[in-house]
Amino acid sequence: MNDLNASSCAPIGIFDSGVGGLTVCRKISELLPFEKIIYLGDTARVPYGSKAPETVLRYARSCAAVLLKYKIKMLVIACNTATAFALEALQKELDIPVLGVLRPGATAALSRTKNGIIGVIGTRGVINSRSYEKTLKAQRPDIDVYSQACPLFVPFAEEGWVSGDALFHVARHYLEDLKKKKIDTLVLGCTHYPLLKNTIQAVLGEDVMLVDSAEETAKDVVESLDKNFLFNKEKEVTQPLFLVTDSPEAFRSTGEKFWGTSLMSVQWVDICSTS
Amino acid sequence: MNDLNASSCAPIGIFDSGVGGLTVCRKISELLPFEKIIYLGDTARVPYGSKAPETVLRYARSCAAVLLKYKIKMLVIACNTATAFALEALQKELDIPVLGVLRPGATAALSRTKNGIIGVIGTRGVINSRSYEKTLKAQRPDIDVYSQACPLFVPFAEEGWVSGDALFHVARHYLEDLKKKKIDTLVLGCTHYPLLKNTIQAVLGEDVMLVDSAEETAKDVVESLDKNFLFNKEKEVTQPLFLVTDSPEAFRSTGEKFWGTSLMSVQWVDICSTS
Repeated sequence: MNDLNASSCAPIGIFDSGVGGLTVCRKISELLPFEKIIYLGDTARVPYGSKAPETVLRYARSCAAVLLKYKIKMLVIACNTATAFALEALQKELDIPVLGVLRPGATAALSRTKNGIIGVIGTRGVINSRSYEKTLKAQRPDIDVYSQACPLFVPFAEEGWVSGDALFHVARHYLEDLKKKKIDTLVLGCTHYPLLKNTIQAVLGEDVMLVDSAEETAKDVVESLDKNFLFNKEKEVTQPLFLVTDSPEAFRSTGEKFWGTSLMSVQWVDICSTS
Repeated sequence: MNDLNASSCAPIGIFDSGVGGLTVCRKISELLPFEKIIYLGDTARVPYGSKAPETVLRYARSCAAVLLKYKIKMLVIACNTATAFALEALQKELDIPVLGVLRPGATAALSRTKNGIIGVIGTRGVINSRSYEKTLKAQRPDIDVYSQACPLFVPFAEEGWVSGDALFHVARHYLEDLKKKKIDTLVLGCTHYPLLKNTIQAVLGEDVMLVDSAEETAKDVVESLDKNFLFNKEKEVTQPLFLVTDSPEAFRSTGEKFWGTSLMSVQWVDICSTS
């Protein structure tokens, strides 16, 4: 990594398969109001969570290529599946700092658990990769980790079905075993899941702590900017620029559920040439 | 269309966004055991139903391009969303017969309804396109058509959740209004939905007829082969060749739910260069 290549007034690039990463983008934007942000949602190829590692790596590379055209000074992979399958490769291949959402979530879980029994939920890709388990065990070999893929949670969140009987039945099906294992902390290992927090909490009970990696990732971004002397010195607050590979309209309407307010600037980008 | 370009012993090409089109492929293979079939599931970019018309058209063109390399004599679009957004374009652009699943489903519904009140369910793309409504009304302007997008049905079918409380709650939410409209026939306007037939029937009651376009589409294929003198004269039974753009393993395991038995030959194809 060569910080001579990066200008501190350059934007931070963030990407996700779709709208889920907006939960991470929002936290970064709140902590760092003077940073320019470009967010890419690869909505033409969403979801990533059910696809093969090599496909996700290829998609992550093409997302990075789109963002690099904007001369970004840092890349944040705001998607657990893409972090699991592409973080290491992109860190080697790019000469700017590349951060993911996985390690921050794991670190937060370790700092919160009291009984040393941690649950992890995520897409099938993330759970099959055992990335969280390895990261948690590397730091604390003594803890117990139980994982569960919850593939239907993403479509429920995307559709805005964040409560109700159907979601409750699905959540109970997925979470029952974790509850029996007496986990006291649950890592929400997918950036879509914070939207389903209330139902997940209702199924597991109030004693289980839910860890959402968005906040911890934002703290990692602050630390990395600091370490690399990359804080933007211009004190101007700008709205993020949102790029999408499918229809801007669909992103705008679903995205607002994740972003909280309306998304000002959403543009379509052609990802074909780099896919 | 120039039938001199097509050889009768050439294969029939079929594509879908993923595994759903296997319901159509199976019917074609049952009716036409001596035809060679190449099926392409665009699993790296599934689903199509939530994506923009121009994105789906681009994907459909690239699927057709992959199949054309195999010198197919006929193209079947075994996906309702791709039929709605790409059938007309591909019929103009290609010099082989191109068939879709939409008109056969509509024709079957018209032949079955007694009270002239037809319901249509499908992906958001298909429902927003109003393609079924237009096709039905063009043939019978006097009938009433009520449509409902059911975006969560595809992930339920893909996950193999084809019964149970959660699906029942989702189905009741989607179908309640159609039931109130007193439809006597429901078009399953997505090739995934036949897997959810039992639950859909349970919600609507036994009096409502469910129309699945797979069978009608297969009949259309027979008719078009006949008309174009394209029946294969070689009387050899071969298994279809399955091509996928994501992992063959994932397709094999989900695909078997749709196909009934194990899928013998599944190969990965690179769709990047044509996407």
